[in-house]
Amino acid sequence: MSVETPRRVAVIGAGAVGCYYGARLAQAGHEVHFLMRGDYEAVRARGLEVRSKDGDFRLDDPHVHRDATEIGPVDWVICALKATAIEDARALVAPCVGEGTRVLLLMNGLGLEDTFAEWFGAERIFGGLAFTCINRVAPGVVHHIDYGTVTLAHYLDDPAAIEEARALWDGANVPVQTASSLLAARWNKLLWNIPFNGLAVTAGGITTDRIMADPDLRAAAEATMREVIAAANADLEAHGTTARLDGAEAIPAMLRATEAMAAYRPSTMIDFVEGRPLEVEAIFGEPLRRAAALGVDVPYMTLLTALMRALDPAAASAR
Amino acid sequence: MSVETPRRVAVIGAGAVGCYYGARLAQAGHEVHFLMRGDYEAVRARGLEVRSKDGDFRLDDPHVHRDATEIGPVDWVICALKATAIEDARALVAPCVGEGTRVLLLMNGLGLEDTFAEWFGAERIFGGLAFTCINRVAPGVVHHIDYGTVTLAHYLDDPAAIEEARALWDGANVPVQTASSLLAARWNKLLWNIPFNGLAVTAGGITTDRIMADPDLRAAAEATMREVIAAANADLEAHGTTARLDGAEAIPAMLRATEAMAAYRPSTMIDFVEGRPLEVEAIFGEPLRRAAALGVDVPYMTLLTALMRALDPAAASAR
Repeated sequence: MSVETPRRVAVIGAGAVGCYYGARLAQAGHEVHFLMRGDYEAVRARGLEVRSKDGDFRLDDPHVHRDATEIGPVDWVICALKATAIEDARALVAPCVGEGTRVLLLMNGLGLEDTFAEWFGAERIFGGLAFTCINRVAPGVVHHIDYGTVTLAHYLDDPAAIEEARALWDGANVPVQTASSLLAARWNKLLWNIPFNGLAVTAGGITTDRIMADPDLRAAAEATMREVIAAANADLEAHGTTARLDGAEAIPAMLRATEAMAAYRPSTMIDFVEGRPLEVEAIFGEPLRRAAALGVDVPYMTLLTALMRALDPAAASAR
Repeated sequence: MSVETPRRVAVIGAGAVGCYYGARLAQAGHEVHFLMRGDYEAVRARGLEVRSKDGDFRLDDPHVHRDATEIGPVDWVICALKATAIEDARALVAPCVGEGTRVLLLMNGLGLEDTFAEWFGAERIFGGLAFTCINRVAPGVVHHIDYGTVTLAHYLDDPAAIEEARALWDGANVPVQTASSLLAARWNKLLWNIPFNGLAVTAGGITTDRIMADPDLRAAAEATMREVIAAANADLEAHGTTARLDGAEAIPAMLRATEAMAAYRPSTMIDFVEGRPLEVEAIFGEPLRRAAALGVDVPYMTLLTALMRALDPAAASAR
């Protein structure tokens, strides 16, 4: 309870990621309201428990709500819904948006901020890219296994706005970075997510160490990364952004980092093995559509996307 | 029992395909010996039963053996082992090979005849390409569901030898075609097997109708076929063969034929869903190695091969 300027924060989408980062903000002294469905009763009864590599803690009596209208307008909305729930997002977020509200999307994938900017206005939209390994282990209990850095960016790449977002996390025990280009930051995350989430699923639901140990899969990851670089830079150019991804530097660096990660389970792979809908369109579909529209040849991305769509349990249930 | 020149035939690898085609030759009057392992007792006790779309029949007391040395030299060896059993093939086939013996490989994939030619001599090696849908439904019972045409070719593309192979099937109620180039025939089969066996497995174990109904997967099949055409023609040229595959004709024709096939289960997909080793190297690995050696760019084949190797239950058990 040490923060200088406590903010009212609404966490919309209180899965593992939303609970963890919301709990960190509450721990720092912000007034955090969690919108919950399945875990509502458990958290009301027993609080919100975080088991973290950085030390366990518990919010004994957090603000939890079943309806966003109970929360009302806040300083910051943290939207941590799955990208597959984008169609529900507007109705869930809108009641928390007042005049000065900022909205931080702690979500995976490309293009989600465009949609939020249309709904709520571009100037208030921020993107957050969480590199972390957090699982929900029981109702109201999340396990922060490793990593945790959040990269913050602003939809209009406004430096003053980025600084506001950074300041929210002061004292929250969350490593924070800022990115001067949201679009470049999103593509830089996709540079890892497309190959590794994609191969972890299509190779049968495997961890990243098995991709790295298999010469064929590792080569496929590299080839996919080269395509993502090409698509990213074409998309950045088309958006009039000066930022570019440097594949010669980024690809070897990401491969080294992935080697150091041991048996990491990408989020899409966890969804896959647990039979949940996959974030296919945000992570694969939208990047592929942009590559195709820009005439970038991306066979690995194309085949991975086709397979992810076919393997998506949501697609299977729609058949 | 109507054939003019009854031959001694040994069927090595009496799975569904070996049992079916061997039973057809026996029905035609040839003396057919089946090498069997798991189904030996059942066939000794109850004979070999064929349920066929062309009419059911049964061999009441077929010649069955547990050891190829009991069979000894024959006129024709029909080797219908899975390509994954190639390492056992020499020891199983050798006892049946005498001076005038011919060996017909009723197997999937590329390069197997090269190995057999080294072992037993090129002039006696034939390739047979079965387009069929046959399942083993119980010990000693096979179900011939649909199709059944066998395309016959000779390792040295000798027309007189091809005619000998064709004559074996006279009166056997098996539609037979001949191919003047074994290598072109093998690649022509791969033109279907690589995309459809590959996508049927990597998309989760699905039937061909679902590939054809999914615009992404269908496009991936077409893109893969274009790669196979390029690899095939480079390989045919490298082998000094004048035959070429014509993609402009073959690809639309195969897509139309696949559409007409309804819910076909490619052999590799059946192996996959039943947890058996996949014929990855013969169907995917060897074609990919040849494409790579010839400098043909084949990203779809490369990724499919990497995924098939990772998904192969035999690879999983070797880990």
